[in-house]
Amino acid sequence: MRDQVRLVEVGPRDGLQNESSHLPTNVKIELIRRLFGAGIRHIEAGAFVSPKWVPQMADSAAVIDALNAPERAEVLALVPNEAGLKSALASQVETIAVFTAASETFSKRNTNCSIEDGLARLRPVVQQARDAGRQVRGYVSCIVGCPYEGRVPIASVVRVAEELFAMGCDEIALGDTNGVARPAEIRALLKAVTAGIPASQIAIHVHDTYGMGLANVLTSLELGLRSVDASVAGLGGCPYAPGASGNVATEDVVYLLEGQGLTTGIDLDALIQVGTWICNTLGRVPSSRVSAARSTRS
Amino acid sequence: MRDQVRLVEVGPRDGLQNESSHLPTNVKIELIRRLFGAGIRHIEAGAFVSPKWVPQMADSAAVIDALNAPERAEVLALVPNEAGLKSALASQVETIAVFTAASETFSKRNTNCSIEDGLARLRPVVQQARDAGRQVRGYVSCIVGCPYEGRVPIASVVRVAEELFAMGCDEIALGDTNGVARPAEIRALLKAVTAGIPASQIAIHVHDTYGMGLANVLTSLELGLRSVDASVAGLGGCPYAPGASGNVATEDVVYLLEGQGLTTGIDLDALIQVGTWICNTLGRVPSSRVSAARSTRS
Repeated sequence: MRDQVRLVEVGPRDGLQNESSHLPTNVKIELIRRLFGAGIRHIEAGAFVSPKWVPQMADSAAVIDALNAPERAEVLALVPNEAGLKSALASQVETIAVFTAASETFSKRNTNCSIEDGLARLRPVVQQARDAGRQVRGYVSCIVGCPYEGRVPIASVVRVAEELFAMGCDEIALGDTNGVARPAEIRALLKAVTAGIPASQIAIHVHDTYGMGLANVLTSLELGLRSVDASVAGLGGCPYAPGASGNVATEDVVYLLEGQGLTTGIDLDALIQVGTWICNTLGRVPSSRVSAARSTRS
Repeated sequence: MRDQVRLVEVGPRDGLQNESSHLPTNVKIELIRRLFGAGIRHIEAGAFVSPKWVPQMADSAAVIDALNAPERAEVLALVPNEAGLKSALASQVETIAVFTAASETFSKRNTNCSIEDGLARLRPVVQQARDAGRQVRGYVSCIVGCPYEGRVPIASVVRVAEELFAMGCDEIALGDTNGVARPAEIRALLKAVTAGIPASQIAIHVHDTYGMGLANVLTSLELGLRSVDASVAGLGGCPYAPGASGNVATEDVVYLLEGQGLTTGIDLDALIQVGTWICNTLGRVPSSRVSAARSTRS
């Protein structure tokens, strides 16, 4: 349905991975259960990556297996390679998320290989995930700017997105990793990407580093996208710390969507409570403006 | 020109009026001079209101008379009535800003009279300002929501805006006073208002209470508006305090506009420095995301 938005909650993964405080396994489980309780139905719950590189995600298998996800809930997990896929397939993960970047330098720094080599590494992962009956999401990082290279050409993003789509990804998630993108840039990019990939199979994943998050989500909706990533309370970056680089806050996205006549099935007040609770646990305050405004009002 | 935006800096008035720390006169003067130095050319520098009601603006005449504004700079000041106008006309103010609301209860609480009586009170003020060769801006508060009445009907906004326009206001500034508006609401409202008033004579004035500020500015630009209010560093509301209700930060608006290919004549890096300086003086941090991101980068 055109008035329904698939909101993918990435707080437990993209968010917590970038918080300075690390949460115990049981709190992560409780967080995801509470998010389900608030109506979240698509959730990136963890990553099957080496604990050497990402210690925050070392307990992802334990978290995911304890979830007891509700009917029709979709649990996503990040997988970098075949080893990670093996662990993911042994878990209750419905959607396998693979990742690469549109910037050569970012790819080398983040995944230790060129874009080309990264794509070659992902091909068997995507194939095996599909063979095992799982959905596959392909992330493209640095869709507008790269912290090392600056402006990223649209053609680079199109090429990587189309490769991921061609190898069998059901959804391409376009990530403004360092949050520099502005609506006109998102518009030009999406026009180019949707020439080869249907808008219904593209997600927008924005960070709010420069405050452009919601404006970019709005533009993506105008161009027909109906899949939006966000993180409860803006986990992953705190507005009080300089250089905050968290995802756009789920509460703020839901408030925006409701005003646009779009539905997510999420109970905004319940979601605000979850965000406040997890931030109390982390010893920070939510970066959601809607949460701050509603907390004062009530 | 369609690619030029008239950015009206309201920090020295709407911003400082709502900060808990009060600035000495010489610091206000220094702030405005620095803003001119960063390329700001339209600035609401004060208000000629009773110091009994708004003690923060008691020195507006002194501030404005000390400015030595650069060529083609426009100094605006808020004026509630004929007494205020008299003081304003004795100063170097180029544009007189009058105000009313689209909500009956807000009008009564804020100006102590009904909308109808408020408009009647403004008519001679607007006439005399025009007779004295001044430009006139008419503010309409509560264009989407009212803190007392909730949702405000579009028809109420249209009626008040058209009355102000008919009595001779050169520009109508539509204010989302409590920051609850969302893009679809702004779009519907602007479609209705622009049926009677050219988009070139309408300004958008948004608060970022619910984080929708930039998305609403973007929508206003899409509907042809080219006059945007903002406050340096988001003065008037702090994101760290719950219920922050400041104007959208000028730095963030400029960053957005630059990405849209629109020009303001403002030097963004210089503006960030002004915002950081005034916030240091006030003992707070800028609520501009762009400022936080750029400060970390450099």
